[in-house]
Amino acid sequence: MIREVVVTTINERGDPHIAPLGIIEEPDGWVIAPFRPSTTLENLLSVPFAVVNYIDDARIFAGLVTGRRDWPLERSASGRPPRLMAALSHAELRVVEVEDHKERPRFHCRIERRQNHAPFQGFNRAANAVLECAILITRLRLLSREKIDSEIAYLKIAIEKTAGPIEREAWGWLMEARDKYYNLK
Amino acid sequence: MIREVVVTTINERGDPHIAPLGIIEEPDGWVIAPFRPSTTLENLLSVPFAVVNYIDDARIFAGLVTGRRDWPLERSASGRPPRLMAALSHAELRVVEVEDHKERPRFHCRIERRQNHAPFQGFNRAANAVLECAILITRLRLLSREKIDSEIAYLKIAIEKTAGPIEREAWGWLMEARDKYYNLK
Repeated sequence: MIREVVVTTINERGDPHIAPLGIIEEPDGWVIAPFRPSTTLENLLSVPFAVVNYIDDARIFAGLVTGRRDWPLERSASGRPPRLMAALSHAELRVVEVEDHKERPRFHCRIERRQNHAPFQGFNRAANAVLECAILITRLRLLSREKIDSEIAYLKIAIEKTAGPIEREAWGWLMEARDKYYNLK
Repeated sequence: MIREVVVTTINERGDPHIAPLGIIEEPDGWVIAPFRPSTTLENLLSVPFAVVNYIDDARIFAGLVTGRRDWPLERSASGRPPRLMAALSHAELRVVEVEDHKERPRFHCRIERRQNHAPFQGFNRAANAVLECAILITRLRLLSREKIDSEIAYLKIAIEKTAGPIEREAWGWLMEARDKYYNLK
């Protein structure tokens, strides 16, 4: 099973990095498999800890893929990555094994601590449509214009029917990025 | 904003009813708008309380639209609807105003109590695909076979890429219902 989450890591100087990632469930932990090259990969190699942030604010996914990286963080214990203030819950992970790979090294992690911050408010179809569209926006170079247009048309239905102001704002950022890529505006 | 949740209500004898519904956010509460005729509608007219269950177990949505109604409940205070044991969190609602309507009367509800039970574990694209497909399955009579097939083909990608055993089981129930409706097996 793959969960779509936001992973925070730090470099040796303690500077945080925030990245949207799909993490892979294992019997006793999670696998983080960042692409090469990436800041998450470099950070995990030098500081073998990560925080997995379970969020439901769709703006964070949409923001991170459209250059909006400034999300409030809560500092953690010294030498550990911070968590997102917006996390409904978070887990603190320690890297226990690294499997090297040409494209996506796999960091096997054990959960050291979990913390719950706010109740889950239920599924929102628009938030999911934002997440799907954010993934699509990261693949503009890989997919045909026809596929991009037809998937966006499908996802837009849930936005129109079920979005609140947060999901509308997030969707707007993604449409801006699409328009910019295709020189539409 | 519309949240996809499971609503529990009771009749005058205290028998519980479990229904998947999209509830509508208002500045100071939620609107439940059940279709006429439905058990949720009858129950809310005779016992003006509801419990909103925020769940992430996709089997419950898939199960409820395919005749699997036996989900464990935790009894609440006397005269109030029970909650689902599987709820990550729940809210107890009191109906404060009923707007009549030929098809979908609107029950304006105020939240009397919220309770958190388990941490949110993050977005899973397959769980969302199950939810979208469950909605589709309730509309088999209203949509063309072509539309059903093409949406299922799209949703199946997230199942194949990101599902765990729970989402696979839920997806299986939905495919069974689709096959049965079209006499495919």
